[in-house]
Amino acid sequence: MNFKVKNDTFLRALLRQPTEYTPVWMMRQAGRYLPEYCATRKRAGSFLELCKSPDMATEVTLQPLDRFPLDAAILFSDILTVPDAMGLGLYFSEGEGPKFKHPLRDEVAIKALQVPDIGKDLKYVTDAVSQIRKALDGRVPLIGFSGSPWTLSCYMVEGGSSDDYAKVKTLMYKEPKLMHHILEVTTQSVIAYLNAQIEAGAQAVMIFDSWGGALSHSAYHEFSLAYMQRIVEGLIKEKDGVRIPSVVFTKGGGLWIESIANTGCDAVGLDWTMDIGIARQKVGERVALQGNIDPTVLFATPDVIRVEVEKVLSSFGYGSGHVFNLGHGISQFTNPDNAAALVAAVHEFSKKYH
Amino acid sequence: MNFKVKNDTFLRALLRQPTEYTPVWMMRQAGRYLPEYCATRKRAGSFLELCKSPDMATEVTLQPLDRFPLDAAILFSDILTVPDAMGLGLYFSEGEGPKFKHPLRDEVAIKALQVPDIGKDLKYVTDAVSQIRKALDGRVPLIGFSGSPWTLSCYMVEGGSSDDYAKVKTLMYKEPKLMHHILEVTTQSVIAYLNAQIEAGAQAVMIFDSWGGALSHSAYHEFSLAYMQRIVEGLIKEKDGVRIPSVVFTKGGGLWIESIANTGCDAVGLDWTMDIGIARQKVGERVALQGNIDPTVLFATPDVIRVEVEKVLSSFGYGSGHVFNLGHGISQFTNPDNAAALVAAVHEFSKKYH
Repeated sequence: MNFKVKNDTFLRALLRQPTEYTPVWMMRQAGRYLPEYCATRKRAGSFLELCKSPDMATEVTLQPLDRFPLDAAILFSDILTVPDAMGLGLYFSEGEGPKFKHPLRDEVAIKALQVPDIGKDLKYVTDAVSQIRKALDGRVPLIGFSGSPWTLSCYMVEGGSSDDYAKVKTLMYKEPKLMHHILEVTTQSVIAYLNAQIEAGAQAVMIFDSWGGALSHSAYHEFSLAYMQRIVEGLIKEKDGVRIPSVVFTKGGGLWIESIANTGCDAVGLDWTMDIGIARQKVGERVALQGNIDPTVLFATPDVIRVEVEKVLSSFGYGSGHVFNLGHGISQFTNPDNAAALVAAVHEFSKKYH
Repeated sequence: MNFKVKNDTFLRALLRQPTEYTPVWMMRQAGRYLPEYCATRKRAGSFLELCKSPDMATEVTLQPLDRFPLDAAILFSDILTVPDAMGLGLYFSEGEGPKFKHPLRDEVAIKALQVPDIGKDLKYVTDAVSQIRKALDGRVPLIGFSGSPWTLSCYMVEGGSSDDYAKVKTLMYKEPKLMHHILEVTTQSVIAYLNAQIEAGAQAVMIFDSWGGALSHSAYHEFSLAYMQRIVEGLIKEKDGVRIPSVVFTKGGGLWIESIANTGCDAVGLDWTMDIGIARQKVGERVALQGNIDPTVLFATPDVIRVEVEKVLSSFGYGSGHVFNLGHGISQFTNPDNAAALVAAVHEFSKKYH
């Protein structure tokens, strides 16, 4: 394996080291807005089969890099692989998103929950990581990822997506001990899962807390952030003499950015609601920031995209510590030419800030 | 009409005047969680017919007051009455929420938009206000309300609810002038609408910005808050020698609470994500705060509800300027006994803070 990364701008920015420009990648950059992705997915038969094939996961991970000069690759996978490996039976119903055959609906099911055998039941993920790392051949760094314990638990208790999280929040308020038990087992699983990704070749890791923003201030700290902090503390910090940076992203977590920065993570992911300059004022010396243009800007024209990119860059201001990204995953309805305009604008306009 | 309010605790708290306890009401307090509401709605035939009948709107507005010792009544109506009066053709499709027959889909439709004739096309609302005020006979104050221009525009452009606001945000980024035109006409309409409610007897008014939290920092200020400020400035401030307080509520707007407090409103509504004590530190001397328990707490037990009520009260702390409320509308799946427990706990526990 090639340990040398030709373009390590992304890793340096996460560690707030000097860079020549602001690196950029896009959440969900390997996705349905790319016709080549749709072709591979069709060949795979289903989304889950695509995730479970290291060959095809490698193929789609590299697709956006062949189109755009992105500064990082991210493992193609799903956040729900962990509860699937716990035996909950992940499936995707057309138009309704992810579902579980065996959601956690009673104390017996919750108490029976166990850390999965990562080396066996999630081998398809670590195999994909090794294979992608090899295929990248040092072009750009590879990001590994996991869902946060709270976000995974939401899906595990609700049995799928939810508007109001009524089931999981009822459990949380009524039976906090059971809720903590789910979170505890999930946290141990996520630590083992991310460390296995690092061992397999992931050069940075990101924790996606998609639903932490649905919690109250105190519930967020107790039921989501405390467990993400445990994960950050449990991660392998260095591999082959190179630091493995971690990014924590709570969608809707702008109010808690100072607490997130205090977990010990290297960078905080921001959705598009918080001004990144204000965020930097609050936490700038502790962590890097990743974000945060509204993905719907990509529905506008290249001219508008350029204006909005400049707004985010100038709000962050001078110096390193910024990884440009969307504030949420790229929409399937995005024109790939507009994604190209965004990447080009970030590279072009950011030089003056470095 | 009786101008004297027997229990004016709510109005005094909004003006940060001393009170004996913290007043409480619940967003969507007249709603489907109450069997008596469901009976009236069934009799009405549909939700919209219920809104359009001043007799039945009066009946359901008073139902929660007969069950719980609430400190305010709120007009029973829908935020989409204004665009309906503009000719967009509001209807409700079972399980899918509100829809418009004629959403704004091109420049011609947008340019044709006009301020409705409030006295004619929204007479059913002002009639309901007068009738409710009379029926209340001074028990508690009556709140009038409207959707915010941004929130109304979201529905008007999307044609209904949306997950990602792709249509309205595309318009906003691509054609900001057209977007501002919709917002301008809607703002003028909302000012006239709220002032007509005040003339008819509303003793406080609230602006619901349900979707402002979906915007970026700069887009929120330009496309939502600026228009709410215009409304606050255009409101009748006093009637019969009594101040008419205004409340601005942006769901997901915690990051912008200081800007909201600067609009000139008397109170800021908070959803459950922001700690109310932190909010008070940021804006406490300028405005009152209304909120902010997570409505899903009501799915727990009375004991848990009491603990969570105390948390919110103690976080706000000593002194006036707090109107207790949920951070969002009460769920239809709430047990009314739990709503009763919440109201009782607020009254019981808050005395020591006054």
